[in-house]
Amino acid sequence: ICRSSAYLGRVLQAGIEFAVPDWHLGAMPDFERRIPEGDNRERNVCRDCGHVAYENPKIVVGSVVAHEGRVLLCRRAIEPRRGYWTLPAGFMENGETLGEGATRETAEEAGAQVKLIALHAVYDVPEVHQVHAYFRAELLAPTFAPGVESLEVKLFSEHETPWDELAFRTVAMALRDYFDDRRAGRHQLHTGVASSTRRGSGA
Amino acid sequence: ICRSSAYLGRVLQAGIEFAVPDWHLGAMPDFERRIPEGDNRERNVCRDCGHVAYENPKIVVGSVVAHEGRVLLCRRAIEPRRGYWTLPAGFMENGETLGEGATRETAEEAGAQVKLIALHAVYDVPEVHQVHAYFRAELLAPTFAPGVESLEVKLFSEHETPWDELAFRTVAMALRDYFDDRRAGRHQLHTGVASSTRRGSGA
Repeated sequence: ICRSSAYLGRVLQAGIEFAVPDWHLGAMPDFERRIPEGDNRERNVCRDCGHVAYENPKIVVGSVVAHEGRVLLCRRAIEPRRGYWTLPAGFMENGETLGEGATRETAEEAGAQVKLIALHAVYDVPEVHQVHAYFRAELLAPTFAPGVESLEVKLFSEHETPWDELAFRTVAMALRDYFDDRRAGRHQLHTGVASSTRRGSGA
Repeated sequence: ICRSSAYLGRVLQAGIEFAVPDWHLGAMPDFERRIPEGDNRERNVCRDCGHVAYENPKIVVGSVVAHEGRVLLCRRAIEPRRGYWTLPAGFMENGETLGEGATRETAEEAGAQVKLIALHAVYDVPEVHQVHAYFRAELLAPTFAPGVESLEVKLFSEHETPWDELAFRTVAMALRDYFDDRRAGRHQLHTGVASSTRRGSGA
Protein backbone atom coordinates (compact mmCIF):
# COMPACT_ATOMS: atom_id res chain seq x y z
CA ILE A 1 0.00 0.00 0.00
CA CYS A 2 2.90 2.33 0.75
CA ARG A 3 4.12 2.52 -2.83
CA SER A 4 0.77 2.81 -4.57
CA SER A 5 0.73 5.57 -7.16
CA ALA A 6 -2.98 6.10 -6.44
CA TYR A 7 -2.17 7.03 -2.87
CA LEU A 8 0.88 8.98 -3.86
CA GLY A 9 -1.11 11.12 -6.25
CA ARG A 10 -3.35 12.11 -3.40
CA VAL A 11 -0.44 12.70 -1.11
CA LEU A 12 0.56 15.48 -3.39
CA GLN A 13 -2.83 17.13 -3.27
CA ALA A 14 -2.74 17.30 0.48
CA GLY A 15 -0.45 20.28 0.75
CA ILE A 16 1.88 18.67 3.22
CA GLU A 17 5.48 19.70 3.60
CA PHE A 18 7.50 16.52 3.08
CA ALA A 19 10.73 15.05 1.84
CA VAL A 20 10.17 12.43 -0.80
CA PRO A 21 12.40 9.35 -0.91
CA ASP A 22 13.95 8.93 -4.36
CA TRP A 23 11.97 5.80 -5.12
CA HIS A 24 8.73 7.76 -4.82
CA LEU A 25 9.46 10.35 -7.46
CA GLY A 26 8.59 8.33 -10.54
CA ALA A 27 5.24 7.33 -9.06
CA MET A 28 3.89 10.79 -8.46
CA PRO A 29 1.56 12.02 -11.17
CA ASP A 30 0.57 15.29 -9.51
CA PHE A 31 4.02 16.22 -8.38
CA GLU A 32 6.18 18.53 -10.43
CA ARG A 33 9.75 19.69 -10.25
CA ARG A 34 9.76 23.42 -10.91
CA ILE A 35 10.96 26.78 -9.66
CA PRO A 36 8.29 28.30 -7.39
CA GLU A 37 7.46 31.98 -7.79
CA GLY A 38 10.04 34.14 -6.02
CA ASP A 39 12.48 31.25 -5.79
CA ASN A 40 15.47 30.47 -7.99
CA ARG A 41 15.81 26.72 -7.91
CA GLU A 42 13.74 23.69 -8.67
CA ARG A 43 11.66 22.28 -5.82
CA ASN A 44 9.09 19.56 -5.42
CA VAL A 45 5.85 21.49 -5.88
CA CYS A 46 2.31 20.19 -5.54
CA ARG A 47 0.53 20.81 -8.87
CA ASP A 48 -2.76 21.06 -7.08
CA CYS A 49 -2.11 23.43 -4.20
CA GLY A 50 1.34 24.85 -4.96
CA HIS A 51 2.79 23.70 -1.66
CA VAL A 52 6.58 23.58 -1.82
CA ALA A 53 8.37 20.63 -0.25
CA TYR A 54 11.68 22.12 0.87
CA GLU A 55 14.53 19.77 1.67
CA ASN A 56 17.48 21.05 3.65
CA PRO A 57 20.65 19.66 5.18
CA LYS A 58 20.53 17.99 8.58
CA ILE A 59 22.90 18.55 11.46
CA VAL A 60 24.79 15.76 13.20
CA VAL A 61 26.15 16.65 16.65
CA GLY A 62 28.75 14.75 18.60
CA SER A 63 31.64 15.06 20.98
CA VAL A 64 35.32 14.28 21.38
CA VAL A 65 35.37 13.21 25.01
CA ALA A 66 38.87 13.22 26.43
CA HIS A 67 39.95 11.54 29.65
CA GLU A 68 43.60 11.38 30.71
CA GLY A 69 44.79 11.86 27.14
CA ARG A 70 42.51 9.27 25.62
CA VAL A 71 39.28 9.68 23.64
CA LEU A 72 35.99 7.85 24.05
CA LEU A 73 34.86 5.80 21.04
CA CYS A 74 31.75 3.65 20.57
CA ARG A 75 31.57 0.52 18.44
CA ARG A 76 28.33 0.71 16.50
CA ALA A 77 25.59 -1.85 17.17
CA ILE A 78 23.45 -0.60 14.28
CA GLU A 79 23.67 0.00 10.56
CA PRO A 80 25.10 1.80 8.79
CA ARG A 81 28.66 0.75 9.65
CA ARG A 82 27.78 -1.78 12.33
CA GLY A 83 30.91 -2.98 14.14
CA TYR A 84 32.93 0.14 13.26
CA TRP A 85 34.07 2.75 15.76
CA THR A 86 32.56 6.19 16.03
CA LEU A 87 32.56 9.25 18.22
CA PRO A 88 29.24 9.52 20.07
CA ALA A 89 27.09 11.56 17.67
CA GLY A 90 23.67 11.69 16.07
CA PHE A 91 21.02 13.86 14.50
CA MET A 92 20.29 17.11 16.28
CA GLU A 93 16.67 17.30 17.45
CA ASN A 94 14.21 20.15 17.23
CA GLY A 95 14.16 22.33 20.33
CA GLU A 96 17.71 21.70 21.43
CA THR A 97 20.98 23.57 20.97
CA LEU A 98 24.03 22.07 19.28
CA GLY A 99 25.60 21.57 22.69
CA GLU A 100 22.49 19.99 24.19
CA GLY A 101 22.36 17.61 21.26
CA ALA A 102 26.00 16.60 21.62
CA THR A 103 25.57 16.08 25.36
CA ARG A 104 22.44 13.99 24.81
CA GLU A 105 24.01 11.80 22.14
CA THR A 106 27.03 11.20 24.34
CA ALA A 107 24.81 10.10 27.20
CA GLU A 108 22.73 7.87 24.93
CA GLU A 109 25.50 6.15 23.00
CA ALA A 110 28.37 6.11 25.47
CA GLY A 111 26.54 6.24 28.81
CA ALA A 112 28.79 9.16 29.70
CA GLN A 113 27.96 12.43 31.45
CA VAL A 114 30.13 15.15 29.98
CA LYS A 115 30.93 18.82 30.27
CA LEU A 116 31.41 20.50 26.90
CA ILE A 117 34.44 22.74 26.58
CA ALA A 118 34.17 24.32 23.14
CA LEU A 119 33.16 23.70 19.56
CA HIS A 120 35.92 21.56 18.06
CA ALA A 121 34.94 21.18 14.40
CA VAL A 122 32.24 21.89 11.84
CA TYR A 123 32.54 19.69 8.77
CA ASP A 124 30.45 19.85 5.62
CA VAL A 125 29.26 16.55 4.17
CA PRO A 126 27.45 17.87 1.09
CA GLU A 127 27.05 14.50 -0.65
CA VAL A 128 24.63 13.36 2.04
CA HIS A 129 23.22 16.82 2.83
CA GLN A 130 24.68 17.00 6.31
CA VAL A 131 26.79 19.23 8.54
CA HIS A 132 28.65 17.53 11.38
CA ALA A 133 29.48 19.55 14.50
CA TYR A 134 31.76 18.12 17.20
CA PHE A 135 32.49 19.57 20.63
CA ARG A 136 35.50 18.97 22.82
CA ALA A 137 34.30 17.54 26.12
CA GLU A 138 35.49 16.00 29.34
CA LEU A 139 34.01 13.27 31.51
CA LEU A 140 32.20 14.52 34.61
CA ALA A 141 32.82 11.07 36.15
CA PRO A 142 35.13 8.33 34.84
CA THR A 143 32.22 6.04 34.00
CA PHE A 144 30.71 5.04 30.68
CA ALA A 145 28.81 2.10 29.22
CA PRO A 146 27.39 1.15 25.82
CA GLY A 147 23.88 2.39 25.07
CA VAL A 148 21.47 0.44 22.88
CA GLU A 149 23.16 1.67 19.71
CA SER A 150 26.67 0.64 20.82
CA LEU A 151 28.39 -2.74 21.21
CA GLU A 152 31.18 -1.39 23.39
CA VAL A 153 32.63 1.92 24.56
CA LYS A 154 36.34 2.38 25.16
CA LEU A 155 39.02 5.02 25.66
CA PHE A 156 41.78 5.17 23.03
CA SER A 157 45.05 7.05 22.92
CA GLU A 158 46.19 8.40 19.54
CA HIS A 159 48.30 5.34 18.73
CA GLU A 160 45.65 2.92 20.00
CA THR A 161 42.92 4.47 17.83
CA PRO A 162 41.50 1.98 15.29
CA TRP A 163 42.13 4.29 12.34
CA ASP A 164 41.19 1.63 9.78
CA GLU A 165 37.97 0.74 11.53
CA LEU A 166 36.35 4.15 11.96
CA ALA A 167 32.73 4.39 10.91
CA PHE A 168 32.63 7.76 9.15
CA ARG A 169 35.01 10.21 7.49
CA THR A 170 34.22 13.06 9.85
CA VAL A 171 35.07 10.83 12.82
CA ALA A 172 38.55 10.38 11.41
CA MET A 173 38.82 14.11 10.69
CA ALA A 174 37.69 15.09 14.19
CA LEU A 175 40.12 12.66 15.84
CA ARG A 176 43.04 13.68 13.60
CA ASP A 177 42.37 17.37 14.27
CA TYR A 178 41.99 16.71 17.98
CA PHE A 179 45.23 14.78 18.41
CA ASP A 180 47.12 17.28 16.21
CA ASP A 181 45.88 20.15 18.40
CA ARG A 182 46.76 18.23 21.54
CA ARG A 183 50.32 17.67 20.39
CA ALA A 184 50.59 21.33 19.38
CA GLY A 185 49.31 22.38 22.81
CA ARG A 186 46.49 24.60 21.53
CA HIS A 187 42.93 23.88 20.46
CA GLN A 188 41.14 25.74 17.68
CA LEU A 189 38.02 25.41 15.55
CA HIS A 190 38.38 23.13 12.55
CA THR A 191 36.35 23.28 9.35
CA GLY A 192 36.48 21.26 6.17
CA VAL A 193 34.61 19.20 3.65
CA ALA A 194 34.24 15.43 4.04
CA SER A 195 33.89 14.09 0.55
CA SER A 196 35.13 11.34 -1.69
CA THR A 197 34.88 13.51 -4.79
CA ARG A 198 35.07 17.18 -3.78
CA ARG A 199 37.86 19.24 -2.37
CA GLY A 200 37.89 22.53 -0.48
CA SER A 201 35.02 24.67 0.72
CA GLY A 202 33.88 28.22 0.34
CA ALA A 203 35.91 28.88 3.45
CA ILE B 1 -9.00 19.90 -0.85
CA CYS B 2 -5.64 20.44 0.84
CA ARG B 3 -7.03 20.23 4.35
CA SER B 4 -9.39 17.31 3.88
CA SER B 5 -9.07 14.73 6.59
CA ALA B 6 -9.99 12.03 4.07
CA TYR B 7 -6.89 12.83 2.05
CA LEU B 8 -4.78 13.33 5.12
CA GLY B 9 -5.63 9.87 6.41
CA ARG B 10 -4.31 8.43 3.19
CA VAL B 11 -1.23 10.59 3.29
CA LEU B 12 -0.28 8.74 6.40
CA GLN B 13 -0.64 5.37 4.77
CA ALA B 14 1.71 6.29 2.00
CA GLY B 15 4.91 5.84 3.93
CA ILE B 16 6.33 9.20 2.98
CA GLU B 17 8.86 11.02 5.07
CA PHE B 18 7.37 14.44 5.80
CA ALA B 19 7.12 17.28 8.24
CA VAL B 20 3.53 18.05 9.16
CA PRO B 21 2.44 21.65 9.65
CA ASP B 22 0.80 22.12 13.05
CA TRP B 23 -2.63 22.77 11.60
CA HIS B 24 -2.64 19.31 10.04
CA LEU B 25 -2.16 17.35 13.20
CA GLY B 26 -5.72 17.36 14.45
CA ALA B 27 -7.02 16.17 11.09
CA MET B 28 -4.96 13.02 10.86
CA PRO B 29 -6.81 9.92 11.96
CA ASP B 30 -4.11 7.42 11.05
CA PHE B 31 -1.27 9.40 12.49
CA GLU B 32 0.02 8.76 15.97
CA ARG B 33 2.52 10.40 18.24
CA ARG B 34 4.64 7.63 19.79
CA ILE B 35 8.15 6.45 20.44
CA PRO B 36 9.25 4.19 17.57
CA GLU B 37 11.08 0.97 18.39
CA GLY B 38 14.74 1.65 19.10
CA ASP B 39 14.08 5.36 19.56
CA ASN B 40 13.66 7.33 22.77
CA ARG B 41 11.37 10.21 21.94
CA GLU B 42 7.96 10.71 20.46
CA ARG B 43 7.75 11.07 16.69
CA ASN B 44 5.00 11.32 14.14
CA VAL B 45 4.53 7.69 13.12
CA CYS B 46 2.26 6.26 10.43
CA ARG B 47 -0.11 3.77 12.10
CA ASP B 48 -0.38 1.83 8.91
CA CYS B 49 3.18 1.41 7.74
CA GLY B 50 5.26 2.54 10.72
CA HIS B 51 7.09 5.19 8.72
CA VAL B 52 8.65 7.80 11.02
CA ALA B 53 8.42 11.47 10.06
CA TYR B 54 11.57 12.97 11.55
CA GLU B 55 11.80 16.72 11.96
CA ASN B 56 15.17 18.31 12.50
CA PRO B 57 16.62 21.81 12.81
CA LYS B 58 17.48 23.79 9.70
CA ILE B 59 20.64 25.73 9.03
CA VAL B 60 20.71 29.40 8.05
CA VAL B 61 23.97 30.58 6.45
CA GLY B 62 25.07 34.16 5.98
CA SER B 63 28.02 36.49 5.91
CA VAL B 64 29.46 39.56 7.55
CA VAL B 65 30.90 41.31 4.51
CA ALA B 66 33.39 43.98 5.46
CA HIS B 67 34.66 46.74 3.20
CA GLU B 68 36.90 49.53 4.47
CA GLY B 69 35.68 49.02 8.03
CA ARG B 70 32.00 48.95 7.19
CA VAL B 71 29.61 46.00 6.92
CA LEU B 72 27.07 45.24 4.21
CA LEU B 73 23.44 45.13 5.32
CA CYS B 74 20.28 44.46 3.29
CA ARG B 75 16.87 45.97 4.01
CA ARG B 76 14.35 43.18 3.65
CA ALA B 77 11.76 43.35 0.86
CA ILE B 78 9.89 40.30 2.15
CA GLU B 79 8.24 39.02 5.29
CA PRO B 80 9.06 38.25 7.98
CA ARG B 81 10.52 41.56 9.11
CA ARG B 82 10.00 43.47 5.88
CA GLY B 83 11.74 46.85 6.00
CA TYR B 84 14.23 45.77 8.68
CA TRP B 85 17.96 45.36 8.11
CA THR B 86 19.70 42.00 7.92
CA LEU B 87 22.99 40.45 7.04
CA PRO B 88 22.69 38.54 3.76
CA ALA B 89 21.63 35.05 4.87
CA GLY B 90 19.19 32.28 4.13
CA PHE B 91 18.44 28.59 4.36
CA MET B 92 21.30 26.29 3.41
CA GLU B 93 20.40 24.07 0.46
CA ASN B 94 20.99 20.38 -0.06
CA GLY B 95 24.22 19.63 -1.91
CA GLU B 96 26.12 22.72 -0.83
CA THR B 97 28.62 23.44 1.92
CA LEU B 98 28.07 26.08 4.61
CA GLY B 99 30.50 28.34 2.75
CA GLU B 100 28.85 27.81 -0.61
CA GLY B 101 25.50 28.62 0.95
CA ALA B 102 26.76 31.84 2.53
CA THR B 103 28.40 32.90 -0.74
CA ARG B 104 25.22 32.15 -2.69
CA GLU B 105 22.96 34.02 -0.28
CA THR B 106 25.26 37.04 -0.36
CA ALA B 107 25.16 37.08 -4.16
CA GLU B 108 21.37 36.68 -4.21
CA GLU B 109 20.41 39.21 -1.56
CA ALA B 110 23.19 41.78 -1.79
CA GLY B 111 24.38 41.36 -5.40
CA ALA B 112 27.89 41.03 -3.98
CA GLN B 113 30.68 38.65 -4.95
CA VAL B 114 32.64 37.80 -1.85
CA LYS B 115 35.61 35.82 -0.63
CA LEU B 116 34.96 34.07 2.67
CA ILE B 117 37.68 34.41 5.28
CA ALA B 118 36.59 32.20 8.18
CA LEU B 119 33.61 31.03 10.16
CA HIS B 120 32.61 33.97 12.36
CA ALA B 121 29.78 32.62 14.50
CA VAL B 122 27.47 29.67 15.06
CA TYR B 123 24.37 30.61 17.02
CA ASP B 124 21.64 28.27 18.25
CA VAL B 125 18.05 29.42 17.81
CA PRO B 126 16.26 26.49 19.45
CA GLU B 127 12.85 28.14 19.68
CA VAL B 128 12.52 28.04 15.90
CA HIS B 129 14.60 24.88 15.38
CA GLN B 130 17.45 26.65 13.61
CA VAL B 131 21.20 27.06 13.72
CA HIS B 132 22.62 30.24 12.18
CA ALA B 133 26.18 30.18 10.80
CA TYR B 134 27.88 33.40 9.70
CA PHE B 135 31.18 33.79 7.86
CA ARG B 136 33.48 36.77 7.79
CA ALA B 137 33.92 37.84 4.19
CA GLU B 138 35.33 40.58 2.02
CA LEU B 139 34.10 42.08 -1.24
CA LEU B 140 35.91 40.82 -4.35
CA ALA B 141 34.81 44.06 -6.06
CA PRO B 142 33.30 47.18 -4.45
CA THR B 143 29.93 46.63 -6.11
CA PHE B 144 26.61 45.45 -4.70
CA ALA B 145 22.93 45.88 -5.45
CA PRO B 146 19.65 44.71 -3.94
CA GLY B 147 18.38 41.30 -5.06
CA VAL B 148 14.67 40.52 -5.32
CA GLU B 149 14.43 39.94 -1.57
CA SER B 150 16.04 43.28 -0.66
CA LEU B 151 14.85 46.89 -0.82
CA GLU B 152 18.33 48.35 -0.51
CA VAL B 153 21.88 47.32 0.29
CA LYS B 154 24.27 49.60 2.12
CA LEU B 155 27.58 49.64 4.00
CA PHE B 156 27.44 50.67 7.68
CA SER B 157 30.16 51.47 10.17
CA GLU B 158 29.60 50.40 13.77
CA HIS B 159 28.12 53.73 14.82
CA GLU B 160 26.00 54.02 11.66
CA THR B 161 24.47 50.55 12.14
CA PRO B 162 20.67 50.70 12.61
CA TRP B 163 20.75 48.70 15.85
CA ASP B 164 17.06 49.26 16.57
CA GLU B 165 15.98 48.24 13.09
CA LEU B 166 17.73 44.89 12.73
CA ALA B 167 15.57 42.03 11.46
CA PHE B 168 16.74 39.13 13.65
CA ARG B 169 18.50 38.56 16.96
CA THR B 170 21.41 36.66 15.43
CA VAL B 171 22.05 39.57 13.07
CA ALA B 172 22.57 41.82 16.07
CA MET B 173 24.74 39.18 17.75
CA ALA B 174 26.91 38.67 14.67
CA LEU B 175 27.40 42.41 14.18
CA ARG B 176 28.13 43.03 17.86
CA ASP B 177 30.66 40.17 17.93
CA TYR B 178 32.22 41.37 14.68
CA PHE B 179 32.71 44.99 15.76
CA ASP B 180 33.97 43.89 19.21
CA ASP B 181 36.57 41.64 17.55
CA ARG B 182 37.54 44.39 15.16
CA ARG B 183 38.19 46.84 17.98
CA ALA B 184 40.14 44.17 19.87
CA GLY B 185 42.24 43.49 16.77
CA ARG B 186 41.63 39.73 16.69
CA HIS B 187 38.85 37.60 15.24
CA GLN B 188 37.60 34.38 16.79
CA LEU B 189 34.68 32.00 16.53
CA HIS B 190 31.59 33.04 18.43
CA THR B 191 28.85 30.76 19.74
CA GLY B 192 25.71 31.42 21.72
CA VAL B 193 22.00 30.97 22.03
CA ALA B 194 19.56 33.47 20.54
CA SER B 195 16.49 33.28 22.66
CA SER B 196 13.97 35.46 24.39
CA THR B 197 13.45 32.93 27.18
CA ARG B 198 16.55 30.74 27.49
CA ARG B 199 20.03 31.54 28.62
CA GLY B 200 23.29 29.72 28.03
CA SER B 201 24.07 26.62 26.01
CA GLY B 202 25.67 23.27 26.54
CA ALA B 203 28.89 24.97 25.50
